[in-house]
Formats: sequence, C-alpha cells, structure tokens
Amino acid sequence: MTDTEKKYNIAFVGAGNVAWHLAQAFTGAGHKVKAIYSRSTATSEQLASILPEAKPVQSLDFTGSAVDVILIAVPDAALQSIAFKIKVAPGTIVAHTSGSQPLNILNLVHGAQPAVFYPLQTFSKTKTLDLKQVPILLEAEQQSTLQQLELLAQSISTKVHKVDSEARRQLHLAAVFACNFTNHLLGVSQQLLQEANLPTELLHPLVQETIAKATEQPPFQVQTGPAIRHDNNVIQTHLHMLQQHPRLQELYQKLTESIQATQV
Amino acid sequence: MTDTEKKYNIAFVGAGNVAWHLAQAFTGAGHKVKAIYSRSTATSEQLASILPEAKPVQSLDFTGSAVDVILIAVPDAALQSIAFKIKVAPGTIVAHTSGSQPLNILNLVHGAQPAVFYPLQTFSKTKTLDLKQVPILLEAEQQSTLQQLELLAQSISTKVHKVDSEARRQLHLAAVFACNFTNHLLGVSQQLLQEANLPTELLHPLVQETIAKATEQPPFQVQTGPAIRHDNNVIQTHLHMLQQHPRLQELYQKLTESIQATQV
Repeated sequence: MTDTEKKYNIAFVGAGNVAWHLAQAFTGAGHKVKAIYSRSTATSEQLASILPEAKPVQSLDFTGSAVDVILIAVPDAALQSIAFKIKVAPGTIVAHTSGSQPLNILNLVHGAQPAVFYPLQTFSKTKTLDLKQVPILLEAEQQSTLQQLELLAQSISTKVHKVDSEARRQLHLAAVFACNFTNHLLGVSQQLLQEANLPTELLHPLVQETIAKATEQPPFQVQTGPAIRHDNNVIQTHLHMLQQHPRLQELYQKLTESIQATQV
Repeated sequence: MTDTEKKYNIAFVGAGNVAWHLAQAFTGAGHKVKAIYSRSTATSEQLASILPEAKPVQSLDFTGSAVDVILIAVPDAALQSIAFKIKVAPGTIVAHTSGSQPLNILNLVHGAQPAVFYPLQTFSKTKTLDLKQVPILLEAEQQSTLQQLELLAQSISTKVHKVDSEARRQLHLAAVFACNFTNHLLGVSQQLLQEANLPTELLHPLVQETIAKATEQPPFQVQTGPAIRHDNNVIQTHLHMLQQHPRLQELYQKLTESIQATQV
C-alpha cells in the first residue's frame, strides 16, 4: 500500500451539514467513519445510518476507540466548550473544520495533535456537491500531522492548501462578503421583484453574467450601475422608491457610497 | 414572407456596449442596421465598420432615412437631452434601451411611436454573449408598436416580456442590488484576499455554489454565516479586523443588521 492509498479511521464530533458531506466523501474514498457524536442523538443516528461502519456515540471520550483522526464539525460558538470535553489517546489528530477559529483553540484537547481541516464551501444536506472541486485548507503545528491530513484531504479534493490561522481568518471574512452578504442582496432583489409581481427568474441571466465577469476580471474594474456612473437622478429615484424600506434604503446608500469611494 | 420573418431597417443612437451587442445580434438575425449616431465619431465609425450596411451619421435628423426603428442606447443621464434633438418621419418607432427611464420620456420626439426595448443584461464590448438567453423587456402605448417590437425582439431572444414603466423601474432597482452591489462585494472580498496574499480563485467555488443555491431556493431561506447565526464572537472579530477600513466596517455592520432584521 502506497502512502496515497492510506485509509484512516475517523470519528466526527457534530453531525450537521459539514459532517454530513465530509463523512460521505471519506467513506466514498475508502476511509472508515467509525463514530459520530452529536448533542442531538437523532442527527448522529441519521448520519450513522447512511454510513456502513459508523456508530452514533454519546460520549466525547475517544480514548478507547481506534480512531486516527477526529473531526470537529460544530458551530463556531460551541467549539471551545466541546473541545474542552474531548478525551483522546495520545497522538490522535484532532482537527476542527472552522474558517474563523484559530488552531490553538484545540490546545484544550489534552494529548491531541491539533489541526484544522476547513472545507471552503457552503453545505446543505439536501444539495449534493462535488467535493473534488472544493478547496480544503489545512493547518497543523506538527509537520507529520500536516502530512497525514494532506493525504486525507487529497483523497477527497484536488484543491488542498496549507493556510495559517491568520490568513484563514481573513479568508473567512472575505467569504462573508462574497457569499453571505451577496446571498442577502440576492434575497433583497427577489423581494423587490415579488413586490412588482415580476418573475424572479428574470434576473438570473444577469446575476450569472455578473458573477462570470467578476471571476474573470477584477470586480472593481468591471463595476457598472448608477453608483459608479455617479448618476444622481437614478440614485435619488431608487432611494425614493425604497422609502417604505428604510433599512434597504440605508443599505443602498452605504453600498453606493462604498462603490464611489473605491479606488480602482 | 411570414410576419416572424419580417426584417427591419434600424438606426442606433449611441454606439456603446448595448448598441454594440444589439446591432450585431440584429444583423445576425437578418435585419439591416443602416445608421449609427454617436457623440464620438470614432465609436460610431468603429461599430459601423463591423456591420455590412451601417453608416456613421452625425445628425439626429432621421426624417430622410428609411428606418423603421430607431434604438436609443445612451447613458440614462443623456437620454432626455438626446430625445429632445431627434427628428423622425411620422410613425417611426423610437425605443430607448434603459431600465430606469419611463416610456413617456420619448414623448419629446415629435411624431414618433415611443417604446422601450430593454435588454436585461450587463454588456461589455470585450465579452461575447448569447443574446438568446437575455430577457428583453418591451413597452409601448400603441398595440401595433408593441407587436412590431415583439417580432424584432423574438428574432434575437427567446425571453421577451411586456413590462410597464413602473415594474421596469422596480426591476432595475432589484438589478442594482443583485448585480451592481453584488459585484462590489465580490471586489471587497478580492481585496481582503489580496491583503492576506491568498489566491483570489480560492473563493470561486464558494461564490458559484452560493449563486446556484440562491437561484434554486429563496435566498433569505438559505442564508448562512455569522449574522444569521447571531454569532457575536465572530462578528466582533470581523469588525475588529476591518478597523483599518472604516467604510467596509460600516458596510459589514449594516449588512449584518439587515440579515438579522429580515423576516423569513
């Protein structure tokens, strides 16, 4: 068996969207997901039921289980308190999957090799994804830990990067702008279309072309619209149209100012 | 010759991105673009040079030219003053291509059949586009004018809609949120990645998945990220990270508030 064929025994702490996709991808790549812990027994049972060797577990003490890697896929806000409770055999790799949390939050896990295994994608259980194209960002203090995780990551994705905690934190911030905030604006846009009884699909080609353009050229350089044209008649009309939505009016104003203040 | 095969003689006022794409699409569909007016002789000559029958013209008096349809594709801010100067033979269809301007702005063109022919897409000269998939939004007072424009529009696009001025204005506002503002956020995100020396392609799969999700399901219902989770630790860290960028800090704050205030 070559190194790239090495198969791992894996446990998950957390059974949400991230665990759901990773656990299936690992299984598909020949690794064994042995145990799944979740605060909610129902969700850990649900995930375990679709994996051949997995058992739902109700304890965070993994000292007796023969696992090589424990992946913690829990909400950021729960990570610290969960990490504090995990017990492992010395040398077990314990990796969290968070974009915003530092590596050293896992120093709380006694005897573990702390690491980060961050899949840079938005997951939902109902939507299948090609993980091969999803960047996986790794971090570990120990070179040997990093090498192990690289083999594991490369078995499910072609885009594996080493990124330290500070850069990952900035990447997560960038993702909030590019994805979470963008999604909200698409929601606002849909709401405005619905108010005018217009089909929401009408804007899909325009949105798709906007995104295609912005991934081919620097977005600031291909900015269009009334803000960058300093078209005050249109801007004032739009602000007037939003007077029943003071929150959206303010968003419009701030985004317009930001576009106009951007140095290209 | 059936009605759907009817070919039109067309003139353009304006030779920018919109005229560039429409004129080529019309020519490809067998219509004749006869004349192109632009304030800049260089751009009208450039566009005319790639069309078999088109001549650059320096007058807005079309009373002597045998054109069926005049399309005004100029910046919104210039539309009113340009319309005021156009002279046409009685009954000529004069359509503007603006998303934000009302039909009746063309009442200034004496004797014309005013109309709107609004292609809902973002155009740049350097990027070819499949116009067949671009929604074209039509408006006219006269039923006969609308029918003529429908034939013309259907010859280049499969997505032709009749939309009145008020709904079109709201659509344009929605497009500013979905496209112009979204593009700006993608630019901000790229700037943040560059500051951390991270490759900007890293976020492309996440952006593409976000957009795919938001076109399949209502965006407000699939919102993710620290704002919707009310994850104040992460939000405060992000605001702190943006302290060198007060404008972006304010945008982050307003968008977070808007996400949290949205009723789903």
